[in-house]
Amino acid sequence: SVGQYDFIANSFSFGFAVMAAATLFFWLSRSQVAPAYRLAITITGLVTAIAAYHYFQIMTSWEAAFSVTNGTIETTGYGYNQAYRYVDWLLTVPLLLVELILVMRLSRSETISQSVKLGGAAALMIILGYPGEVSEGGAVRFLFWVLSMIPFVYIVYTLVTGLKASIAKQPENVRGLINGASTLVIVSWLFYPIVFLFPLIGLTGGAAVTAVEVGYTIADITAKAVFGVVILTIAMRKSEAEAAGET
Amino acid sequence: SVGQYDFIANSFSFGFAVMAAATLFFWLSRSQVAPAYRLAITITGLVTAIAAYHYFQIMTSWEAAFSVTNGTIETTGYGYNQAYRYVDWLLTVPLLLVELILVMRLSRSETISQSVKLGGAAALMIILGYPGEVSEGGAVRFLFWVLSMIPFVYIVYTLVTGLKASIAKQPENVRGLINGASTLVIVSWLFYPIVFLFPLIGLTGGAAVTAVEVGYTIADITAKAVFGVVILTIAMRKSEAEAAGET
Amino acid sequence: SVGQYDFIANSFSFGFAVMAAATLFFWLSRSQVAPAYRLAITITGLVTAIAAYHYFQIMTSWEAAFSVTNGTIETTGYGYNQAYRYVDWLLTVPLLLVELILVMRLSRSETISQSVKLGGAAALMIILGYPGEVSEGGAVRFLFWVLSMIPFVYIVYTLVTGLKASIAKQPENVRGLINGASTLVIVSWLFYPIVFLFPLIGLTGGAAVTAVEVGYTIADITAKAVFGVVILTIAMRKSEAEAAGET
Amino acid sequence: SVGQYDFIANSFSFGFAVMAAATLFFWLSRSQVAPAYRLAITITGLVTAIAAYHYFQIMTSWEAAFSVTNGTIETTGYGYNQAYRYVDWLLTVPLLLVELILVMRLSRSETISQSVKLGGAAALMIILGYPGEVSEGGAVRFLFWVLSMIPFVYIVYTLVTGLKASIAKQPENVRGLINGASTLVIVSWLFYPIVFLFPLIGLTGGAAVTAVEVGYTIADITAKAVFGVVILTIAMRKSEAEAAGET
Amino acid sequence: SVGQYDFIANSFSFGFAVMAAATLFFWLSRSQVAPAYRLAITITGLVTAIAAYHYFQIMTSWEAAFSVTNGTIETTGYGYNQAYRYVDWLLTVPLLLVELILVMRLSRSETISQSVKLGGAAALMIILGYPGEVSEGGAVRFLFWVLSMIPFVYIVYTLVTGLKASIAKQPENVRGLINGASTLVIVSWLFYPIVFLFPLIGLTGGAAVTAVEVGYTIADITAKAVFGVVILTIAMRKSEAEAAGET
Amino acid sequence: SVGQYDFIANSFSFGFAVMAAATLFFWLSRSQVAPAYRLAITITGLVTAIAAYHYFQIMTSWEAAFSVTNGTIETTGYGYNQAYRYVDWLLTVPLLLVELILVMRLSRSETISQSVKLGGAAALMIILGYPGEVSEGGAVRFLFWVLSMIPFVYIVYTLVTGLKASIAKQPENVRGLINGASTLVIVSWLFYPIVFLFPLIGLTGGAAVTAVEVGYTIADITAKAVFGVVILTIAMRKSEAEAAGET
Ligand SMILES: CC1=C(/C=C/C(C)=C/C=C/C(C)=C/C=O)C(C)(C)CCC1
Ligand SMILES: CC1=C(/C=C/C(C)=C/C=C/C(C)=C/C=O)C(C)(C)CCC1
Ligand SMILES: CC1=C(/C=C/C(C)=C/C=C/C(C)=C/C=O)C(C)(C)CCC1
Ligand SMILES: CC1=C(/C=C/C(C)=C/C=C/C(C)=C/C=O)C(C)(C)CCC1
Ligand SMILES: CC1=C(/C=C/C(C)=C/C=C/C(C)=C/C=O)C(C)(C)CCC1
Ligand SMILES: CC1=C(/C=C/C(C)=C/C=C/C(C)=C/C=O)C(C)(C)CCC1
Repeated sequence: SVGQYDFIANSFSFGFAVMAAATLFFWLSRSQVAPAYRLAITITGLVTAIAAYHYFQIMTSWEAAFSVTNGTIETTGYGYNQAYRYVDWLLTVPLLLVELILVMRLSRSETISQSVKLGGAAALMIILGYPGEVSEGGAVRFLFWVLSMIPFVYIVYTLVTGLKASIAKQPENVRGLINGASTLVIVSWLFYPIVFLFPLIGLTGGAAVTAVEVGYTIADITAKAVFGVVILTIAMRKSEAEAAGET
Repeated sequence: SVGQYDFIANSFSFGFAVMAAATLFFWLSRSQVAPAYRLAITITGLVTAIAAYHYFQIMTSWEAAFSVTNGTIETTGYGYNQAYRYVDWLLTVPLLLVELILVMRLSRSETISQSVKLGGAAALMIILGYPGEVSEGGAVRFLFWVLSMIPFVYIVYTLVTGLKASIAKQPENVRGLINGASTLVIVSWLFYPIVFLFPLIGLTGGAAVTAVEVGYTIADITAKAVFGVVILTIAMRKSEAEAAGET
Repeated sequence: SVGQYDFIANSFSFGFAVMAAATLFFWLSRSQVAPAYRLAITITGLVTAIAAYHYFQIMTSWEAAFSVTNGTIETTGYGYNQAYRYVDWLLTVPLLLVELILVMRLSRSETISQSVKLGGAAALMIILGYPGEVSEGGAVRFLFWVLSMIPFVYIVYTLVTGLKASIAKQPENVRGLINGASTLVIVSWLFYPIVFLFPLIGLTGGAAVTAVEVGYTIADITAKAVFGVVILTIAMRKSEAEAAGET
Repeated sequence: SVGQYDFIANSFSFGFAVMAAATLFFWLSRSQVAPAYRLAITITGLVTAIAAYHYFQIMTSWEAAFSVTNGTIETTGYGYNQAYRYVDWLLTVPLLLVELILVMRLSRSETISQSVKLGGAAALMIILGYPGEVSEGGAVRFLFWVLSMIPFVYIVYTLVTGLKASIAKQPENVRGLINGASTLVIVSWLFYPIVFLFPLIGLTGGAAVTAVEVGYTIADITAKAVFGVVILTIAMRKSEAEAAGET
Repeated sequence: SVGQYDFIANSFSFGFAVMAAATLFFWLSRSQVAPAYRLAITITGLVTAIAAYHYFQIMTSWEAAFSVTNGTIETTGYGYNQAYRYVDWLLTVPLLLVELILVMRLSRSETISQSVKLGGAAALMIILGYPGEVSEGGAVRFLFWVLSMIPFVYIVYTLVTGLKASIAKQPENVRGLINGASTLVIVSWLFYPIVFLFPLIGLTGGAAVTAVEVGYTIADITAKAVFGVVILTIAMRKSEAEAAGET
Repeated sequence: SVGQYDFIANSFSFGFAVMAAATLFFWLSRSQVAPAYRLAITITGLVTAIAAYHYFQIMTSWEAAFSVTNGTIETTGYGYNQAYRYVDWLLTVPLLLVELILVMRLSRSETISQSVKLGGAAALMIILGYPGEVSEGGAVRFLFWVLSMIPFVYIVYTLVTGLKASIAKQPENVRGLINGASTLVIVSWLFYPIVFLFPLIGLTGGAAVTAVEVGYTIADITAKAVFGVVILTIAMRKSEAEAAGET
C-alpha cells in the first residue's frame, strides 16, 4: 500500500542520511586517534561512504519502480533492483572485518592472513546468497541460504574465538568494548539470514517487502554505523592507553 | 490558500538556510574550543547538516505536492510526505542528547551509559509518535501521543535532574548557560507534542497544516540551531576556564 | 516592460555575484584578523552566504514568473515570490547586528544580552513587516509599516547611542570607522521602510516593481557586503592596535 | 552568419576559460607574496572569479538566443542579454582599481579615500553607460557615451598622475612594471568606449555584433587576467624587495 | 535476459564503487608512507580515479543500450560502447606498471627507462587488441589476439625476471609481498586475454556478454584496487624499514 | 561510419581522462619541487585543467552532432564545432611556453621578455591558423598554413637555440631531460601543421575526420601531459641539485 511504500522510502532516506553523516563523523574524527589506528578509521568511513552511495542508488531505484498518485500505488514497469544490497555487502562486509582486525593491532602477518581469510569467507557468503535472493522459487532460495550459512558460521566462530583469545592482551579500558563489539557483530549479522528467510515463512506481498527492506536497513545501520562508533571508541581508548604507557 | 502555501514554502526554505548556515558556523568554529570538546561540536554540526538535508527533502516534497498557477492552488496527486520529519528526528534527537552529554564532560562510562539510555528513549519516543502522525483517526493519534509522552517525560526529567546535579561541578562561568540550555530544551521540546495535538483540538484544513508545519519548523530551529549556539558557547567558556586552570 | 524585466533580472544576478564574492572574500580574509575577531568575520561571511542562496532563489523565481519572447513579456501563471526577501532578512538582519556587536568586543555578558535584545527586535521588525508585504490593500500595508517601525526605531536608537558610548573605549585608529559604520547602518537601513512605502505613494505597475526590487537590492548590498567590508576593516585595525599594545 | 555565431560563442568560452584559469592561478599564487599583499591578490582572484561566472551567463544567454541547424541560423525569440556585461563591470571595475591601489601600499587613509573616490567614479561610469547600451537610438547612445566619458577621464587622469607620483617611492625593481600597468590600464580601458561606438560609425548586423562582442572579450581578458598577472608580478617583486630590506 | 542485464549492471556499479572507494583510500593513505613513495601512491590513486570515471561511463552506456519494462528486455537502438574499456586500459595499464616500478626504488635512469619500455609495450598491447575487440569476425579477433600477446609476454617476462632480480636488494619485510605482487600481476593479467577469447570458444549471446563483462570487471578490480593495496603495503613496509635503518 | 564515430568519441573521452588525471597529478606533486619551481608546476596543471574543460566541450559537441541508432549514423543538424581546439590552443600554447621558460630559471627580465615574445608569437600562430581551419576552400586553408608557419618556425628556432645555449648553465642531472624536452616539443608540435594539411593531400570524409581528430588528440596529449611530466621531472631534479648545492 501507499503507507508501506512511504515507510520503505523513508527508511531508505534515513539509511542514506545515517551513512552520509557517519562518513563525515568518522573522517572528522580521524585526528583523535593515534596514527596506528587511522587506517582502521579511514576504512570505517569508507564503509559508510560506500553504503551511502548504495543507499542513494537503492532509494532512486525504489522511487522509479512505483508511481503514487491520489492515494493509489501502481508499478511503473521498471523493476526494483532487489539484489542491489548484495553489491553493497560484497564490498563493505569484508571491509568491516578488516576494520575490526586492524583495531585489534595484531601482528602484521597475522593481520594480513586474518583479513584475507575472513574477507574471502565474507565475499563467498555474499556471493552464495545472491542466487537465492534473485530466484523465484523457495527451494532454490533455501538451498543457497544453507550454503551461505557455512561461511557465515565460520566467520562468526572465528571472530568470537579470536576476539576472546586476544582480549587478555588488550588494555583494560577496552575489554568491555571489545566484548560489546563481538556481541554487536553476532546480533546484527544474525539479522541478515533471518530477514532472508522471511519470504519462506509465509510473509507475502507488501508486508514481506516492508519487513525485508526495513529489516535489512536497520541491520545495515547497526552493522555499519553503530559498529563503527564502537570501533572508533575502542581506537580512541587504546590510543589513550598507549599514550599513557609511553609516558 | 496560496498565501498559506507560500508561507509554508518560505518556512521550509528558511529552515534549510538556517540549518545549512548553522552547519558551516559550527564546523568553522570547531577550532575555537579545546580538543576535549571538538567531538561535541562535530556532532552539533552533524545534527544541523542532517537537518539541512532533510529540510531540502521536505521543501521539494511540498513543492511537488501542489500546483499554483494564476493565484489558485491545486493538488498534483503526489502526496506531501507528511511524516518525513520523523526520519529527521529519529537521527537528530538522539544526537542532540549526545551533544549535551558530551559537553558536560562526565566520566567515560557515565557518558556512554547516559548516551545509550537517553538516545534509546529518544528513538523510542519518535518511533512511538510515527503511527499517530500517519493515521487518519484522532483516537489512534491520541493513543500514540500518550505512549510517546512516556519516554518524553523520562528524558526531560532525567535531563533536568541530571543537569542540576552536575551544575555544581561545572566552572562558574557556564552555570548560567547550562541552566539556560536546560530551559531551552524543556521549552523547545514541549512544542512538539503540543503541535502534534493541533489536529485534535479543532484546527483544520489550511490553518492546521500551516500551524503544524511552521510550528515544527520554529521548534526545529530552536532545538537544533539555537541550542547548538548555546552548546558551543558552553564549550568555549569551559575551554577558557580549563586553559586558565592549567596555567 | 521587457527592459524593466531585464533590469530587475540583471539586478538579481548582480546581487548574487556580490554576495557570493563577498562570502569568498570574507572567509579568505579570516586569517588576517586576530583570533578574537574571527567569530565576527565568520558571521560576516555567513550573512553573505545566506544572502547569496536567497538571491539565487529570488533570481530563479523571477525568471520563472515571466516569459519573454520576441520582445514581449507575459506572465507564466507562476507567481513571483515577492516576500521571499523577508525569509532572508529574518536570518541575516539579526546576524548583522551580532556581527557589529562582536567586533566591538564588549564584555561576554554584555555581548550576549545585546545580541539577544537587538536580534529579537530585528526578528520582530521583519515579522511585523511580512503581513503588510503580502497584503493587497494599502491600509493593511501602512498599519504593519507603523508597527514594524517601532522595533526599527528601537534598534537604530540603541545602535547609535551604544556605539557613541563605546567609541571612547576603542582604539584611536577605528573611531572614524565606527562612526562610519553607524552612519552606514542608519542610511542603508532607512532605505527599507522607504522602499516599502513606494506602492503607497503612487508608484504603480512596472515602475513600482522596478523601484522596489532594485531599491531593496541596492540596500541589501550596502547593508551586507559594504557594511561587512567596514566591519572587516575595523577588525583588522583593532587587531593591529592590540598587537602593538601587546608588544 | 553561422561562422560569426560560432566565432562569438568560441570567444565567450575562451573568456570563461581564461577567467576560470586566472582565478585558480591567482589563488594558488597567494602564498608567494608577502602577507601585506595577499589582500590585493585575493581581490585579483575575486575579479576573475566574478568574471568567470558572468562569462558563463553570457555564454548560455548567447547559445539560447539562436538556433543553428543544417548550416543556417535563426533567432529563437529569447533575446540575447546584451547589457549583461555591465553587471560584470559594475562590480569588477571598482575592484580592479582597489587591486591596483592596494598593491601600491599607500597609507591606510589614502588607500581608503582613493578606493572610495575611484571606485565610486567607476561605478558611475558603468551606470551612465547602461542606458546607452540598451537604447535603440544613436543619439541616446551617444549622449550617455559623453556622460560616461566624464568619470572615465577622471579615473584615467587620476590613475596616471597618481601612479607617476608614487613611482619614485616604489622599489627600483617594480618601477618598470608600474609604468607598464599604467599603460595597460589606459590602453585596455580605451577599448571599451571605442567598442561602444562601433554601432554609431556604420558597423551593422553580424559584423557589428561580432566586433562588439569579441572586442569586449579581448578587452576584458586584457583588463582582468593580463592586468592581474602584472599586479601579481609587482606584488612578488615588492615582497622580495621588502624581504631584502628587512635583512 | 533481464537477470543477466541486472547482473552486469550491478557489476558495473560495484566496479565503480570499488574504484571510487579505492581512490579515496589511497589518497587518504598517502601520508602514511615516506615521501620517497608518495609519487607511487599518488599514481595508485590516479589509476583508480581514472577507472572510476570510466566505469561510470561504462555503466551509463550499458543502461542506455537496453530498455527493461515489465520483465522483458529490448535494445534501444543505442549501441553499448563495447570497446570503451580499452580507453581505460590504454591509460591505466601503463600507469600500473609505473606504479610498481616506482615502489621498487630503482635508480632514476633505470626507473625512467623501464617505465618507458614497459609503458610503451603496454600501450602497444592495448592498441593491438582494439581492432580485434571491435571486429565482427573471429579470424580478425584471433589475429589481433596473437599480435597483442607479443607485448603481453614481453611485459610479463620482464616483470617477473626484473622483480626476482631486485628482490634480494629489498628489505626483508617486503620480499614476500613483492613475490605476491608479481604473482598477482601474472594471475590477474592472464584473465584479460582469456576473457578476450570467450567469443571464440563457443560462448554466445547473453552468456558470452555476461562472462566477458563480469570477467573483465573482476580482473580490473583485482589488477587495480587489490594490486594497489599490495603496492601500498609494500610502500608502508619499506618506509618503516628505511626509517629504522636511518636511526 | 559508426566505427569511426565511436573511435573518435573514445579518443575525446581518453583525452579528457588524461588531461583531468594529469591536472590532479601535477597539482598533487607541487609540494615535491622547490618553491622556486612551484609557479611552473602550477601553470603545468593549469594547462591540463584548461584542456580537460575544452576536451569535455569537444566531446559533448561531437556527441550532439551525430545520432547513432541501430548501427547507422546520421547528422543531427547541429554542426560539430570543428575549430574549438583553437580556443584551447590560444590559451594553452602560450602557457606551455611560459612553463618551459619558468623551469629554466632565467633572470627575471629575461623570463618576462621571452614569455612575452614567444607567447605572443604562439598566439599569433594560432590566430593565423583559425581562418584556414574554418574555411571551405583548400587555397585559403593553405594560405593561412603558410602564414601560421612563420611564427611556428620562429618559436621552434628560438626554443631550440635558446635551450641549447642554456643547457651548459643547467645542473648536470637535467641536461639530458632538457634535450628530451626540446625534442619532444619539436616532434609533438610538428604534428599540428601536418595534421592541418591532411584535407589538402587527399584524405576525405570519415577517414579524414578520424585522422585529424585522433591526430590532434594524440598530439595534445603528448604536448601537454607528457611534456608536463618531463617539465615536472626537470623541476624535481633541479630542486635536488639546488638543495645539494646549498648544503
Ligand atoms: C548467512 C546468509 C546471509 C548473510 C548475510 C550477512 C551476514 C550480511 C551482512 C551484511 C552486513 C554486515 C552489511 C553491512 O554492514 C545472506 C547473504 C543474507 C544470504 C542467506 C544466508
Ligand atoms: C512527545 C511527543 C512527541 C515528541 C517529539 C519531540 C520531543 C521531538 C523533538 C524533536 C527535536 C528536538 C528535533 C530537532 O531538534 C511526538 C513525536 C511529536 C509525538 C507526540 C508525543
Ligand atoms: C521598518 C520597516 C521595515 C524594515 C526593514 C529593515 C530595516 C530591513 C533591513 C534589512 C537588512 C539590513 C537586510 C540585509 O542586510 C520593513 C520590514 C521593510 C517593513 C516596513 C517597516
Ligand atoms: C567610457 C565609456 C564606457 C567605459 C567603460 C569602461 C572603461 C569599462 C571598463 C571595463 C573593464 C575594465 C572591465 C573588466 O575588467 C562605457 C561603459 C562602455 C560606456 C561608454 C563610455
Ligand atoms: C594480451 C591481450 C590483451 C591483454 C590485455 C591486458 C593484459 C589488459 C590488462 C588490463 C589491466 C591490467 C587493466 C586494469 O588494471 C587484450 C587487450 C585483451 C587483447 C587480447 C590479447
Ligand atoms: C603551424 C601551424 C599550426 C600550428 C599549430 C601548433 C604548433 C599547435 C600547437 C598546439 C599545442 C602545443 C597544443 C597543446 O599543447 C596550425 C595552427 C595547426 C595551423 C597551420 C600551421
